[in-house]
Amino acid sequence: MKASVLFSGGKDSSLSAILLDRFFDVELVTCSFSVLPIGDIAKEVADELGFSHRVLKLDNEILENAFNIIVKDGFPKNAINYIHHKAVETLASDDDVAVIADGIRRDDRVPLLTNPQIRSIEDRHGVHYICPLLGYGRAAVNTLVEQYLVIEEGQSDDIIKADYETELREIIRQRVGQDEIDKIFPSHVQSRVIGRVK
Amino acid sequence: MKASVLFSGGKDSSLSAILLDRFFDVELVTCSFSVLPIGDIAKEVADELGFSHRVLKLDNEILENAFNIIVKDGFPKNAINYIHHKAVETLASDDDVAVIADGIRRDDRVPLLTNPQIRSIEDRHGVHYICPLLGYGRAAVNTLVEQYLVIEEGQSDDIIKADYETELREIIRQRVGQDEIDKIFPSHVQSRVIGRVK
Repeated sequence: MKASVLFSGGKDSSLSAILLDRFFDVELVTCSFSVLPIGDIAKEVADELGFSHRVLKLDNEILENAFNIIVKDGFPKNAINYIHHKAVETLASDDDVAVIADGIRRDDRVPLLTNPQIRSIEDRHGVHYICPLLGYGRAAVNTLVEQYLVIEEGQSDDIIKADYETELREIIRQRVGQDEIDKIFPSHVQSRVIGRVK
Repeated sequence: MKASVLFSGGKDSSLSAILLDRFFDVELVTCSFSVLPIGDIAKEVADELGFSHRVLKLDNEILENAFNIIVKDGFPKNAINYIHHKAVETLASDDDVAVIADGIRRDDRVPLLTNPQIRSIEDRHGVHYICPLLGYGRAAVNTLVEQYLVIEEGQSDDIIKADYETELREIIRQRVGQDEIDKIFPSHVQSRVIGRVK
């Protein structure tokens, strides 16, 4: 059975794919609004990991709505959750998709679907939505990452990830300016997957 | 790295072990108060699955406390959760244990550790507590079970599982009588793992 893993090129989605590799035909799916070439960035990582990869173009109306949410809120949580929900909906509506895998961990708070949202998506689209790392804490994930992935770390400004935040930051930069990004998004250490331990 | 999987011989703990098999040295651990030979029942299943297995004897004071809780409550939830918490604590205090795996699913309500309980156990004992199936709904678990396990199903009275409920039912039967068991425990379909799909 095929599993479509939502893929940002980060360690959580990479590790999720590796955990599922033996049990499903894994394809990595990167959602993009085509604002930045994040599909290409993710494809490079996918190639390093040895998984098939495709880009799912999301409707730009979703990005516009998320932009309005984040500018009104002044913090990213609701906008990121909104994009994530719409991304999972979009993927679930693909007739060739039977299993959607999401790399969220036990300690993650964003992006997070609620249980009613998950059940609604599963029931309406006839898919399984699974989170292989949901039962793993940060330390357990790091232990597996060290064993199976080669990563490099840096501040969020320096590392371009293929996640929702990257394109949302870009349109805020274009329309409002860099200062606004620094106000809205806390700077944090990001990781980039650069290879797989063979 | 070794992972100690809490093992009842049921499909959730069996599937958890299979999911972890490639990433950890899996040992199956069945907790028992030695009221019934559930360790032997679990060992038979473990042999079928091809995993090493051991029985962890739990302090009978735990069973006594659980008996008092369930007789007072008239329903099993708190007593089962109490035993489970103490079982995980007992396993975590073993110096040879680094990773504890628990087979609970997304939809399970009992037994369930709270996040503060989990963090406390991880911090005090220096272990990882992981739930490989926590991010899987019932339907997704069933799909994997069909692929990897051979099971048989029956009413809970007919199938002896190596879980906390089995020994708790037995001391209620001995001390209070069968009628009380039927009042306290709802009858439900149980499954027994009888083999692994090669």
